[in-house]
Amino acid sequence: MTEHEQMIDQLEHCIDTQNAQGAGALLESLPSGERSRLIDRLDDERQERLMVMIQPEQAADLLEHMADAQAVDILDGIDPDRAADILEELDSDAAADMLGELEDDEAEAILEEMEPAEAAEARELLRYDEDTAGGLMRSEFLAYPMSATVGDVTEDMRANAETYTDYDVQYAYIVDAEKRTVGVLRLRDLLLSTPATPVTKIMLPDPLVVNHATRLDDLVRLFDEKQFVGFPVVDDLKRLIGVVMRKSVREAAAEDVAEDFLKVSGLGGKEELRSMPLGVRSGRRLSWLSVNILLNVLAASVIAAYQDTLAQVIALAVFLPIISDMSGCSGSQAVAVSIRELALGLVRPVEMMRVLGKEMAVGCINGLALGILLGAVTLLWKGNMWLGAVVGGALMLNTIVAVSLGGMIPLALKRMNLDPALASGPILTTVTDMCGFFFVLSMATLVLPHLV
Amino acid sequence: MTEHEQMIDQLEHCIDTQNAQGAGALLESLPSGERSRLIDRLDDERQERLMVMIQPEQAADLLEHMADAQAVDILDGIDPDRAADILEELDSDAAADMLGELEDDEAEAILEEMEPAEAAEARELLRYDEDTAGGLMRSEFLAYPMSATVGDVTEDMRANAETYTDYDVQYAYIVDAEKRTVGVLRLRDLLLSTPATPVTKIMLPDPLVVNHATRLDDLVRLFDEKQFVGFPVVDDLKRLIGVVMRKSVREAAAEDVAEDFLKVSGLGGKEELRSMPLGVRSGRRLSWLSVNILLNVLAASVIAAYQDTLAQVIALAVFLPIISDMSGCSGSQAVAVSIRELALGLVRPVEMMRVLGKEMAVGCINGLALGILLGAVTLLWKGNMWLGAVVGGALMLNTIVAVSLGGMIPLALKRMNLDPALASGPILTTVTDMCGFFFVLSMATLVLPHLV
Repeated sequence: MTEHEQMIDQLEHCIDTQNAQGAGALLESLPSGERSRLIDRLDDERQERLMVMIQPEQAADLLEHMADAQAVDILDGIDPDRAADILEELDSDAAADMLGELEDDEAEAILEEMEPAEAAEARELLRYDEDTAGGLMRSEFLAYPMSATVGDVTEDMRANAETYTDYDVQYAYIVDAEKRTVGVLRLRDLLLSTPATPVTKIMLPDPLVVNHATRLDDLVRLFDEKQFVGFPVVDDLKRLIGVVMRKSVREAAAEDVAEDFLKVSGLGGKEELRSMPLGVRSGRRLSWLSVNILLNVLAASVIAAYQDTLAQVIALAVFLPIISDMSGCSGSQAVAVSIRELALGLVRPVEMMRVLGKEMAVGCINGLALGILLGAVTLLWKGNMWLGAVVGGALMLNTIVAVSLGGMIPLALKRMNLDPALASGPILTTVTDMCGFFFVLSMATLVLPHLV
Repeated sequence: MTEHEQMIDQLEHCIDTQNAQGAGALLESLPSGERSRLIDRLDDERQERLMVMIQPEQAADLLEHMADAQAVDILDGIDPDRAADILEELDSDAAADMLGELEDDEAEAILEEMEPAEAAEARELLRYDEDTAGGLMRSEFLAYPMSATVGDVTEDMRANAETYTDYDVQYAYIVDAEKRTVGVLRLRDLLLSTPATPVTKIMLPDPLVVNHATRLDDLVRLFDEKQFVGFPVVDDLKRLIGVVMRKSVREAAAEDVAEDFLKVSGLGGKEELRSMPLGVRSGRRLSWLSVNILLNVLAASVIAAYQDTLAQVIALAVFLPIISDMSGCSGSQAVAVSIRELALGLVRPVEMMRVLGKEMAVGCINGLALGILLGAVTLLWKGNMWLGAVVGGALMLNTIVAVSLGGMIPLALKRMNLDPALASGPILTTVTDMCGFFFVLSMATLVLPHLV
């Protein structure tokens, strides 16, 4: 039995004997990576019983460091009352994120069990779109009236030190009577001033604020340009409603890249963990595969149209999968470059002609190189120059098609407000398969006497 | 002419007429995303002339917000003397990052032109591996002796306010006579204490420090566990040598995911921008494609071995690309799940048997579903039950193979210290193609009389 298996055994034993202290101590002794892995290995029932056994603060801490999918699964399974206790221990934005991932009725059940004030905050955050400043902000922040002095602020901070430690305070905001932000106080400046100084004297006036509807990519750009830890978020009446932190924006942006990766890989951008139920894993993957198989059959129908040629030159059958696969590879490279450039803001969806020009150039060079290579291999292998020319020529043409299309499809999808990471792959391979099969088989038909 | 083209024209005109002020003002007026895109559209020569014309601070600001590949390209082209002026305006860790991406002799030429102190700092940082605390840290930090008082610290901070604003200060460190970190001062605590208080009284003693060799994934975990903005980094003698910031670790981790995406897409993990020279773009992509084409020919040789069967049942040729492509799709999904789980630390490379079990289950269900689907389509299309059974059965078996292998290959590569994102795809498709072709064609050979 490995050390890892022993730990699973120990943890299971603690859970089965309701030994909350033992389970807590065992988990405390582990680094957080090991902890997530260990919990991931428990069956669903034990995971849920563990979360109910230990202190809500400890459970909240565990949830916060899990993969999102894993955390939501567990919340889903436990009593709403208990889930509410745990979520109350989290930052308002983290709690709202998890509630947002749950089914609506599950989330509602938990919200009803939460403290009215915390539930109201979470509901407020849930109203906003996940990838906007409103969805990413936290509602805990420090705001003081314009009449306050440095002494008032430090006194308030001292008096509420305990509460505020959870706030991750870097700035305090100065608001007017209508709750509109008129200035920002940096801790540094509080430090360097006498208590009697009015805050309006040391605040940075007219601070940059962001509207709640500001989208994630604009926030990423804003944090890139300004070295701030957070921005005040305001509603449509310019009233201060929260603070969006650099950390939350970075995390959301990193998640977007990870999602793109999962989408391109045919997992629909949803995180799959092997600890999830078999039916969920299998079903999600199948929904993508079954679309693909139909597209594949469609593409293969081109082959069926040329059965006579194939019957006479059976060697062609060897090269069809090669051409299909190689065109897919060349096209995916161009797709990946476009998805990256879109994400970095280096290309706009309307610049299709520029991308076409750039990709065609690459397509011609690489098509020529790959075409000559495959043509030469075919000649050496089958000893027929005409066959080499057909196969190599088809690969050359189809590489140009695949690379040009691969560069443009993500832009076209983006223009149609569709998700490039999700749909580019299947569209690309279907079209390039059809073209590739057509090039080989129609060219072979033309020079058939030389191939037989 | 679009507004965008007009701006390019204006900028080019400013560059050509050496109108530094005009170029600076034009760039200032744009949001940073628009700015990077605009510069990306200039030819290499104008990009370099622009960087030389404007103020070093403005050039540094532009570089910092570009994609890494773009920034390094520009630095590469301009005079080392000028590049040195620009890099001196950046944080030490950002400067070292860019120097690290340049060729050794290019970097050396620039280092020789930098201020001795800044060059020494950059050289120091360059000694460390990019993905370790040493490589990610910045060397600007505040350290005070154990004998200092709160008054000493605030006075020093006030006196050097200008210099320190660039430091992004959140903590100050207290060091003993051997420069070992003995405590951390939070700005917040300075604020709440009288000037005469000795810093040793309000510092947090025995702070967590990280060794310079701590790897990125451990740093990610550490920042997940502790809500700190930065950690002090120490050398092997435990002397304070820098501070690693949460922001740098997040960025490096996000880059890793982005690299995985580029690797899986056949771009070798290197960022490709369409503004790069055609030869570079084409060459990088070809190096991956040429390996793939040889693997493809290898896989197709299985088909060649069954030419007799194919000649008698030409319809089989239609299904070979379908089986190859579908197995590739099913396998890639499992590869993506393994790469994600490895990145999240939810699976360890030794857990091959667990992954095999989990993936086989998915493989069996999805194989059955896809096999029945393709079998039914084949039966309807070709009207031959035996052909449907052969094609559907082969897809079923091969889906199980592809999904199981797809889950395990990344773990096996990781155990051999190879890069899973880079090598999993080609290995997977070659093996599954060979198996898939073998399944269809050998089964067809067995029941040949029923197919003809």
